[in-house]
Amino acid sequence: MSSSFGTLFRITTFGESHGPSVGAVVDGCPPKITLSEADIQPQLDRRRPAQSRLTTTRNEADRVSILSGVENGKTLGTPISLIVKNNNQRTGDYQQIHSVPRPSHADYTYQMKYGNRALGGGGRSSARETVARVAGGAIAEKLLYEDCGIEIVAWVSNVYSIEASSIDIMGITRTDVDRSIVRCPDSDTSEKIKEAILEAQKAGDSLGGIITCVCRNLPAGLGEPVFDKLEALLAQAMLSIPATKGFAIGSGFACSEMRGSAHNDLFIKKGDRLGTKTNHSGGVQGGISNGEPVLFRVAFKPTSTISLPQQTVDFNGNDVVLEAKGRHDPCVVPRAIPIVEGMTALVIADLALRQKSR
Amino acid sequence: MSSSFGTLFRITTFGESHGPSVGAVVDGCPPKITLSEADIQPQLDRRRPAQSRLTTTRNEADRVSILSGVENGKTLGTPISLIVKNNNQRTGDYQQIHSVPRPSHADYTYQMKYGNRALGGGGRSSARETVARVAGGAIAEKLLYEDCGIEIVAWVSNVYSIEASSIDIMGITRTDVDRSIVRCPDSDTSEKIKEAILEAQKAGDSLGGIITCVCRNLPAGLGEPVFDKLEALLAQAMLSIPATKGFAIGSGFACSEMRGSAHNDLFIKKGDRLGTKTNHSGGVQGGISNGEPVLFRVAFKPTSTISLPQQTVDFNGNDVVLEAKGRHDPCVVPRAIPIVEGMTALVIADLALRQKSR
Amino acid sequence: MSSSFGTLFRITTFGESHGPSVGAVVDGCPPKITLSEADIQPQLDRRRPAQSRLTTTRNEADRVSILSGVENGKTLGTPISLIVKNNNQRTGDYQQIHSVPRPSHADYTYQMKYGNRALGGGGRSSARETVARVAGGAIAEKLLYEDCGIEIVAWVSNVYSIEASSIDIMGITRTDVDRSIVRCPDSDTSEKIKEAILEAQKAGDSLGGIITCVCRNLPAGLGEPVFDKLEALLAQAMLSIPATKGFAIGSGFACSEMRGSAHNDLFIKKGDRLGTKTNHSGGVQGGISNGEPVLFRVAFKPTSTISLPQQTVDFNGNDVVLEAKGRHDPCVVPRAIPIVEGMTALVIADLALRQKSR
Amino acid sequence: MSSSFGTLFRITTFGESHGPSVGAVVDGCPPKITLSEADIQPQLDRRRPAQSRLTTTRNEADRVSILSGVENGKTLGTPISLIVKNNNQRTGDYQQIHSVPRPSHADYTYQMKYGNRALGGGGRSSARETVARVAGGAIAEKLLYEDCGIEIVAWVSNVYSIEASSIDIMGITRTDVDRSIVRCPDSDTSEKIKEAILEAQKAGDSLGGIITCVCRNLPAGLGEPVFDKLEALLAQAMLSIPATKGFAIGSGFACSEMRGSAHNDLFIKKGDRLGTKTNHSGGVQGGISNGEPVLFRVAFKPTSTISLPQQTVDFNGNDVVLEAKGRHDPCVVPRAIPIVEGMTALVIADLALRQKSR
Repeated sequence: MSSSFGTLFRITTFGESHGPSVGAVVDGCPPKITLSEADIQPQLDRRRPAQSRLTTTRNEADRVSILSGVENGKTLGTPISLIVKNNNQRTGDYQQIHSVPRPSHADYTYQMKYGNRALGGGGRSSARETVARVAGGAIAEKLLYEDCGIEIVAWVSNVYSIEASSIDIMGITRTDVDRSIVRCPDSDTSEKIKEAILEAQKAGDSLGGIITCVCRNLPAGLGEPVFDKLEALLAQAMLSIPATKGFAIGSGFACSEMRGSAHNDLFIKKGDRLGTKTNHSGGVQGGISNGEPVLFRVAFKPTSTISLPQQTVDFNGNDVVLEAKGRHDPCVVPRAIPIVEGMTALVIADLALRQKSR
Repeated sequence: MSSSFGTLFRITTFGESHGPSVGAVVDGCPPKITLSEADIQPQLDRRRPAQSRLTTTRNEADRVSILSGVENGKTLGTPISLIVKNNNQRTGDYQQIHSVPRPSHADYTYQMKYGNRALGGGGRSSARETVARVAGGAIAEKLLYEDCGIEIVAWVSNVYSIEASSIDIMGITRTDVDRSIVRCPDSDTSEKIKEAILEAQKAGDSLGGIITCVCRNLPAGLGEPVFDKLEALLAQAMLSIPATKGFAIGSGFACSEMRGSAHNDLFIKKGDRLGTKTNHSGGVQGGISNGEPVLFRVAFKPTSTISLPQQTVDFNGNDVVLEAKGRHDPCVVPRAIPIVEGMTALVIADLALRQKSR
Repeated sequence: MSSSFGTLFRITTFGESHGPSVGAVVDGCPPKITLSEADIQPQLDRRRPAQSRLTTTRNEADRVSILSGVENGKTLGTPISLIVKNNNQRTGDYQQIHSVPRPSHADYTYQMKYGNRALGGGGRSSARETVARVAGGAIAEKLLYEDCGIEIVAWVSNVYSIEASSIDIMGITRTDVDRSIVRCPDSDTSEKIKEAILEAQKAGDSLGGIITCVCRNLPAGLGEPVFDKLEALLAQAMLSIPATKGFAIGSGFACSEMRGSAHNDLFIKKGDRLGTKTNHSGGVQGGISNGEPVLFRVAFKPTSTISLPQQTVDFNGNDVVLEAKGRHDPCVVPRAIPIVEGMTALVIADLALRQKSR
Repeated sequence: MSSSFGTLFRITTFGESHGPSVGAVVDGCPPKITLSEADIQPQLDRRRPAQSRLTTTRNEADRVSILSGVENGKTLGTPISLIVKNNNQRTGDYQQIHSVPRPSHADYTYQMKYGNRALGGGGRSSARETVARVAGGAIAEKLLYEDCGIEIVAWVSNVYSIEASSIDIMGITRTDVDRSIVRCPDSDTSEKIKEAILEAQKAGDSLGGIITCVCRNLPAGLGEPVFDKLEALLAQAMLSIPATKGFAIGSGFACSEMRGSAHNDLFIKKGDRLGTKTNHSGGVQGGISNGEPVLFRVAFKPTSTISLPQQTVDFNGNDVVLEAKGRHDPCVVPRAIPIVEGMTALVIADLALRQKSR
């Protein structure tokens, strides 16, 4: 297990999907930041199940409590512990999986790794674990916003090949994003994505998608070469989110089709700093932020839990047809938005503190 | 700076591009592994500049010396230090860049971060730093191969939209790869890529590309959820390599266009273990290896150094036309193969030791 | 803040003295260890306040709850979170200290470090924080005992110059220790220490003391030179406990008065292993356990909180006479026994896992 | 192996006693510090063997070279690698120890831990490894002195019960210390210690001793509770030095004989800050520096290598009389002074950077 992330601003998460609670300890948050549960709850609400008819019916209020590290509304500089109760566990749904590893789930690999595993739902491999990341990420965001006005906004840019048309990355807000039930701020595309998800849901199937995230107002200088480059830590952070299969910054994989003369971001004067004319770099050069918006994309696979019967084998290798009963989202990207934002905030808060020590 | 990577098998690298040497300390390598410079040199030779007319003319023999940690041909379990001398520094080439940050290079961001920077070439941001990674990675590979026959092979699968046709991922070897001057094991494509690179070189321009890497014979159980998942550490490792813009495992970004019923990897019996029928997962589930080949792709941007004149600004914001004189590769992917392999080996060796402690 | 300890077996603690709760997350505990609250509670009971008339009257039941990481009585290999509620906070006692830093307490240094501090009691600097260490340590002990029969026993060997006569370090048990109200297993000395503490209590004063700890059945080979030597990590662990001023292993400071010919531990045959005739080394050589009992001593200062009036200054430098009202132990060593044992277990569990990876 | 120390200012050491070289990589040193070999060499010269007739005759010039991280006399913020060649290896001296583990050396424990060990001298367990620490520590000292005038001075306060009389801890300098061949700045005691060491040397025996260290001008606020308290990291640092058996800060073990009313350090006004009247705390409260001098003591055992014959057993348990031939110091404390100072500087530099990030 490796349940901690960050060097100076450091989160440690705990909790199984169907245990009594999930939570986090955030160590290294500077003192005297104004903080209460009200700063954290909105992002948890955006991640909450049962928030629309497109999401799982598991009903969790996901109310966060701060157990330490804050007194009289201000952080103390000591570890902030956060807890969210699980109310709607339903381990009975998972009886068949005791003997049958669900395809593309982690039942088989956890069993091989630990020789033991949580039998209710996915235990630690469940997306429920990300509640803790979202809560911790909200604290990181508070710090970043108060400190230097850093803003992080993610949205659904693609589901099942339905792609959002160009978004104004300097102007887009979470309010814009949340106007769409599928969190795609291009209303035409949003409607098409909604239809596609509903259809998949009806068919007992699921869909993959892509989230794009922008991080604005980042000062130049964040990122710790050579191994903790900004894009390297973002990549780790994103690929640590359940169901992700790819990460791309700036031009991403399209860079492989370009010439240097087209890809290079020429410098221009922007007020009293240097900026770049284009942003194929995605806001980083040599692993360090350059003052331009950091822009990246994350690919999410279709939900592994589907209602359609699957021809697979049990742990003993015997043929079996699996028909899942667990509650699930037909497409995870709408609810993954605050997870991507939270992990981004955790990466940047840590790098900001590391740079401050210099 | 963050120049160390790994928890138990841990590399620390040092050295600037135009300083006296580059090197690494590898701490945590188990004792009694047979090891000499001869185990390390072949991968350095594959990374070496001036190895073909498609690469930079900077001429470095890149001979590695082991300074500690090995006695009588066996590792002691103590830190192994590795050193490679720089012989062909030519800092005079870089005079203009004292005042002009090269577009899409790290001159500007290093200056903003540190208020200081190496004036000869890119210092630590230069790809020369990866010599140390390749050397350390070769030790990790030795350990993995001796311990459980793990094999890592990377190849060029794409340059400037010229894509290799399907490769036999179970059979491909480094010998196959090295038959091609551009390290693309599909001979038709290899020829086309070579032509494209030569043409770009002649034009004073550069090209991007994609490397695919397979890791075979990995036992099930490697990867440390929730933050040090196998794919998360691979993503960090790859995005920490200079010039990378994207990482994708298994189905990668294409997963966003799929339905769960098509994407799920159904289990089947494979001898005395469970395997999967398809491998959209890329050998991992829930962040843990499942015994199938680990397969991933890494996108490299076109080399930032080009000979074509570039209209940019100097550090003071004054317009300037930059014409690069530094030696460079017109396309980095052929020489990046051993870097991708080395970083992969470092990730897996660390995870293998961490799993052993359980 | 640095609230985590350990590399593979890793504890993270949280909670202020007068907040709602204190707790810990233990990450890296191997799977399939039998574990329940009943394994942890006994050590918490030994640390509990109000357990005798020699301890503070703050009354805390200190009941531990496991919130994650255990299912059906077995560890899952996932993070184990532990929580203990604070019931008997009494922040009113601490009004004067808002403006007056208590001598030899951490009020002043926390304020200087964080520009903020918990106003009720000592916040994180209070010994209440050690509840979390004792709870986590009990899990480490379980693992060590089940794995290889390692036993850790600490006792009070000295209070205010009253020194226990020789103790049988191979035979002593916690039951022997607990027979004494002051946890000194030499009954004559125990009685004298009790009298001394009662007298100090009556006088509104406090006393210092020394705890000795033995760790038996440790296999040879634990300890990670050169910086994480067994004695180095024990020293860190012990000096991280509130009120400690010194650590000594084996011969300790007395070694400075010896000749090498007397101090060297000659090897002898002990069954099928090598042992040593004497144990001035305290069970370690070169930072690695040698199979002999690990034996060390820890010095605790007299409790800083005393009822006697103290002539000091407030935060503004104005003269003031401080008369403490907070509840406190007149001598901390009897209750510090399980803290020393717990921290020892945490050090050894981590080193045992690290050695296993080799 | 754990060859790295520090979180932000981080040293990694390498090299065996009788290999080609020893060295270090210092990562995290801030940029723009003036640095050259001349800043490092003086402390190496104080640690150098063969510097007087009281030390080993192994003759090493111990010239340090900086291989990276510095350009034009200024640090770049990138890893600084340091190397010192071994010139006077003499592995022939160690032939008997191939089969006989030297008493109170690490031959036996390294063999048990690694199943392998360096056969020439002690390999990594040799005090030769500390060359790297002294070199790295000198860089840390430079930073601390330039940044805020922090001064670290250590001296020999005790050898074989001969104790230096009171030293002026605010005034003492390294020049004062080096006036004495045994580095005891009290000239009467110095003479007696010299005689005692010469006598032990003649007898083929060795002596233990105590080093006291003061750290002046430390600002209040350094130290990271709860596990990386200033005294906890100092304790780890000191106990990681070969041959140490104890660490005590401020009142140390004597605190166990005191009452709180005598031990408490009452606050007084000192200029525009608060100070304390006494300094039993040794400059720390709650693990954080309080602005008073940090004062601690470290116990060193008598050198394990002695010329007197020793009745011991070989690795197979057969009786054998060992007569050491290796060159050695009859008492290590005079040469350990720069090691203690170096490790202190490494601890404080790291904590200073960590505090700066807040």
